[in-house]
Amino acid sequence: MRGRAYDRRVSAAYRLNRLFHARSRRCIDVAVDHGFFGEPRFLDGIEDMARVIETLVAAGPDAIQLSLGQAPLLQALPGGDKPALVLRVDVANVYGEQPPRQAFSHVVDDAIGHAVRLDAACVCVNLFDIPGADALRRECIENITALRTAADRAGMPVMVEPLVMTAGVGGYAVDGDTDRIVALVRQAAELGADVIKADPTDDLGAYGRVVTAARVPVLVRGGGRVSDEEILARTRAVLEQGARGIVYGRNVIQHPDPGAMVRALRAVVHGDEG
Amino acid sequence: MRGRAYDRRVSAAYRLNRLFHARSRRCIDVAVDHGFFGEPRFLDGIEDMARVIETLVAAGPDAIQLSLGQAPLLQALPGGDKPALVLRVDVANVYGEQPPRQAFSHVVDDAIGHAVRLDAACVCVNLFDIPGADALRRECIENITALRTAADRAGMPVMVEPLVMTAGVGGYAVDGDTDRIVALVRQAAELGADVIKADPTDDLGAYGRVVTAARVPVLVRGGGRVSDEEILARTRAVLEQGARGIVYGRNVIQHPDPGAMVRALRAVVHGDEG
Amino acid sequence: MRGRAYDRRVSAAYRLNRLFHARSRRCIDVAVDHGFFGEPRFLDGIEDMARVIETLVAAGPDAIQLSLGQAPLLQALPGGDKPALVLRVDVANVYGEQPPRQAFSHVVDDAIGHAVRLDAACVCVNLFDIPGADALRRECIENITALRTAADRAGMPVMVEPLVMTAGVGGYAVDGDTDRIVALVRQAAELGADVIKADPTDDLGAYGRVVTAARVPVLVRGGGRVSDEEILARTRAVLEQGARGIVYGRNVIQHPDPGAMVRALRAVVHGDEG
Amino acid sequence: MRGRAYDRRVSAAYRLNRLFHARSRRCIDVAVDHGFFGEPRFLDGIEDMARVIETLVAAGPDAIQLSLGQAPLLQALPGGDKPALVLRVDVANVYGEQPPRQAFSHVVDDAIGHAVRLDAACVCVNLFDIPGADALRRECIENITALRTAADRAGMPVMVEPLVMTAGVGGYAVDGDTDRIVALVRQAAELGADVIKADPTDDLGAYGRVVTAARVPVLVRGGGRVSDEEILARTRAVLEQGARGIVYGRNVIQHPDPGAMVRALRAVVHGDEG
Amino acid sequence: MRGRAYDRRVSAAYRLNRLFHARSRRCIDVAVDHGFFGEPRFLDGIEDMARVIETLVAAGPDAIQLSLGQAPLLQALPGGDKPALVLRVDVANVYGEQPPRQAFSHVVDDAIGHAVRLDAACVCVNLFDIPGADALRRECIENITALRTAADRAGMPVMVEPLVMTAGVGGYAVDGDTDRIVALVRQAAELGADVIKADPTDDLGAYGRVVTAARVPVLVRGGGRVSDEEILARTRAVLEQGARGIVYGRNVIQHPDPGAMVRALRAVVHGDEG
Repeated sequence: MRGRAYDRRVSAAYRLNRLFHARSRRCIDVAVDHGFFGEPRFLDGIEDMARVIETLVAAGPDAIQLSLGQAPLLQALPGGDKPALVLRVDVANVYGEQPPRQAFSHVVDDAIGHAVRLDAACVCVNLFDIPGADALRRECIENITALRTAADRAGMPVMVEPLVMTAGVGGYAVDGDTDRIVALVRQAAELGADVIKADPTDDLGAYGRVVTAARVPVLVRGGGRVSDEEILARTRAVLEQGARGIVYGRNVIQHPDPGAMVRALRAVVHGDEG
Repeated sequence: MRGRAYDRRVSAAYRLNRLFHARSRRCIDVAVDHGFFGEPRFLDGIEDMARVIETLVAAGPDAIQLSLGQAPLLQALPGGDKPALVLRVDVANVYGEQPPRQAFSHVVDDAIGHAVRLDAACVCVNLFDIPGADALRRECIENITALRTAADRAGMPVMVEPLVMTAGVGGYAVDGDTDRIVALVRQAAELGADVIKADPTDDLGAYGRVVTAARVPVLVRGGGRVSDEEILARTRAVLEQGARGIVYGRNVIQHPDPGAMVRALRAVVHGDEG
Repeated sequence: MRGRAYDRRVSAAYRLNRLFHARSRRCIDVAVDHGFFGEPRFLDGIEDMARVIETLVAAGPDAIQLSLGQAPLLQALPGGDKPALVLRVDVANVYGEQPPRQAFSHVVDDAIGHAVRLDAACVCVNLFDIPGADALRRECIENITALRTAADRAGMPVMVEPLVMTAGVGGYAVDGDTDRIVALVRQAAELGADVIKADPTDDLGAYGRVVTAARVPVLVRGGGRVSDEEILARTRAVLEQGARGIVYGRNVIQHPDPGAMVRALRAVVHGDEG
Repeated sequence: MRGRAYDRRVSAAYRLNRLFHARSRRCIDVAVDHGFFGEPRFLDGIEDMARVIETLVAAGPDAIQLSLGQAPLLQALPGGDKPALVLRVDVANVYGEQPPRQAFSHVVDDAIGHAVRLDAACVCVNLFDIPGADALRRECIENITALRTAADRAGMPVMVEPLVMTAGVGGYAVDGDTDRIVALVRQAAELGADVIKADPTDDLGAYGRVVTAARVPVLVRGGGRVSDEEILARTRAVLEQGARGIVYGRNVIQHPDPGAMVRALRAVVHGDEG
Repeated sequence: MRGRAYDRRVSAAYRLNRLFHARSRRCIDVAVDHGFFGEPRFLDGIEDMARVIETLVAAGPDAIQLSLGQAPLLQALPGGDKPALVLRVDVANVYGEQPPRQAFSHVVDDAIGHAVRLDAACVCVNLFDIPGADALRRECIENITALRTAADRAGMPVMVEPLVMTAGVGGYAVDGDTDRIVALVRQAAELGADVIKADPTDDLGAYGRVVTAARVPVLVRGGGRVSDEEILARTRAVLEQGARGIVYGRNVIQHPDPGAMVRALRAVVHGDEG
């Protein structure tokens, strides 16, 4: 019944069951949507997506995050025991070596329709906070509220990825300031996010503030390539603060043995025995 | 019948019956939608919304004003004897420490649809008057007229919040000039507002001009945290001038005993016996 | 039949019968839509709209021009022998003491739908000619052609108000140049206006050029408050040149005896015996 | 059948049969849509449109080009033996004595719907090439492709009027450069024009290049008032180069004897015996 | 069935069967859509499109790329044994001798509808990467995602043409930098292109990187007119790197014997025996 079905969290929960591990209720999501943004330096290690997907599926994370054009590589595989699809639905131009003249973040047409037809478990969309980039902030907010309506109708969960950036050397750089992250994560929650993918705070001990502000499950972004020790330690720290999982990219894909890295992460996140 | 049902004030009146106290026909609305705007300094005292709603429901105002993402905290509670939901439907970027390059006030997609499904008693939307911010003024007017049409079809009351601001130290500051407030409130009324949430005038004795310009019920905004004496005195003053109630936020939420403050306000507004 | 009904002047004529006096086929329209524009100095004498409408209905003009928010004051009155409603449907920001950074003229959403439900006899919309304000000119033209289509479907007459302005001291001022008025009135006619509300030309003897350019009935705007003698003499002058009536605001509303002024105007316009 | 009916040239041909003379398959179209553009100096000789249409219908061209607001003057006349209606559907602001700050060319809402209801034989829309006016160029292209779709559905022919202009003394002036005209006419053809109304080239002997580029019938614009000898000689020259007719305005309307001028043109274009 | 039919590559494959040669599964596409862009210097050799199409059809490539206005020249020809139609659906303004003030790439209204009714085998749309032209990049991405949805519904393949440009002498010039081409081709693939038409890289030996990034079939652009030896050698080189065919224009059309050139290309691409 429509009336009963409305609470989108109930409705979306059916698909979220595919995203979160059955026992731990946590999620390891590997993002390989970097090619979507058109940046030459983002392609290292993911030039050949057919091979990437093959490797990742064998490694066995809970989910893989892909764009519209690459999603069939995952979804064409037979059987149900494979990673869930998280569909990245917006493409932004803020990752270049120079700030863009006109920053944008464009959601693909009929994004929720594509997500449904591709049997995705969730969609992922950005919410940028870049000083002075008001038109971009507005566009992201519009993107999210439009997705929210369409997603409610389909029972499709919406993962919002708040991204706090500052002008760095050349282009923009991620900012780990806790106050800014908390405020932006909170805005994502007020806009109705079902899941929030947030950066780690510089002060990892303050991550509980992010979790409180979000109220919905928080997955932590990985960022640039670091050592195995560092990434596993950071993962443990944010889980202790209440995070419900991770969304890592380069730290898995560029790892010499992605399967081993995923196994190590499963041990930390799900408590699997290697 | 459609013909008969048209006068939206008749139609919307069914929901307004939930907003205004049955005997006093006045309203105490507590706004905790501050997190919607993404400003770090707006979160003091409302970091943990689950606890905030619990506290407020116990305190018993007539209504609580929330965004889309937080409204389920109130509406998931069982029973009919709880505060009505006022759904804040637009998110603006004018509250920062610097004026934005491009000011916006964006109404969430399908706002009235969300309000209906969330069983709100009213929606709330801004009408900003900021010198030089013509594009923002226009956007607010567009927002209101679009909401008006959708709201008429659903019998959903529209509360307009005219906000007169000026360039202050850093960002914008609220302006208590009576002439400006009266003219903006009047524009809100001409646009078809069902309820108007207006700032107190610097000269409280002139508040009757605001009430006359509005013609529809006026609820008075609270603004920054002041002493109990000041807020109660101001409340009495505007009620004497014809205001139909109040919309307070920080003066309730940041109060050491929100329940006591609401009881004090009920005594003033509704004439309840403590 | 659709085919036959198409000539909108035939179709709209049913409602225009309510606008124009049965014998004289002329119209006295009193505009009290000034509050729509949000200008403090426009409210003199119309602060209390309930009283204004009461006074005006007693005075008995052929029509009263109101915005969406105030129209119920007139239309809720019982009986058919009262002034017809002309619904002002656009709100502009060009009347301030300084020219706006971005001039706009926004038509309320579903304007013709509101007009039909409010049982209006006509809608009224601006066509501004302000040197350099090309985006505003374009918006007005878009407004008119969009209203034209919707109005055709409903048989609702569209009154276009061409307004020739120039940069004055502070904001914009009305310009009485005959060539500019004629060209703008002509554009309104080519866009399909059913009625045109035009400024008086500085040279009243040239007003016949305006009437010829319009081809459809022309009602003359009043402008600022002048003496009784001047307004009545001007009224006679434009009627002799072929105008079909007047749209006056301040000269009626701010008059010490609006009823007497309307009676005087009826004598001039309709030939009524005082 | 839809399938068969698709080739719009077959479908539109039924209406084009009304535009082109039955024997000569050529067309004399008299344009009196100048008042649409709001320019005072464009009104000379066409101040009184009722009289203009009366004169022109008596003179008997194959078609008269009018805007939405004036078309009823022609179409309300009884009988089938009168000029066909060509409906001008866009209004531009590029003809002033100064270049506009923001050039526009706006197509009236539901243009093809109006054309069908007004029983037009064709619509006419501009394609401007003005150096630096990229936004205008884009708007014209959008206008044409939107009209194309709607026109295909109605079997309504679309006449495109490519207009090559340059910055002149004061405003823009028409440019007779053959290369620019050919390239712009070609773009109109590629966009799917059914008929093209093109300026004469400065080198009339090169007009065949325009005709080849167009592939569809080309009607030649008249431009400013010249002597009878010049206009008739130019008409002969372009017909020899393959043009299928003319669209003249001022050279007919401002002529002391429009009937005689049309008869002279009929002799040249259709080979009628005076 | 909808579910099964969704994989657009399966669905679109029916039409792609007409684009790719039955045995070689490669494609020779001759583009003569240059007139669409309104540039005088682009018309050399294609002034008379009726003759061009006649010549090309006799020469027998696998496909011919045309705009909406010229496509009937090909599709009106009887019989099934003729080149397939690739419909160019967007018109850009970036090819002039000066960079445009506001670059645009506009997709014709209802492009997929036109493609279906014209019985096209594929549509072709640009994706421009021009430094600083962020609004153009965004528009292209919007174009592609909107086409993607409509094309999925119709089973119409979408060929994306990524075009890497830089400011050159006068206007923009194509850039053969492999890294930029790979990143842009990859973005096209992530956006869901069915076929990609890409420039040759300056280093032809690196073309395999383009093919890997694309994953879908890559057709190579020709560019300016070069000697027969050069074009044939280049064709062989890119085919060896995995390209699935070519899209040539001037090197076929401006050739003294287009039929001989197409035969020579067929020998190289399809292995036909002269």
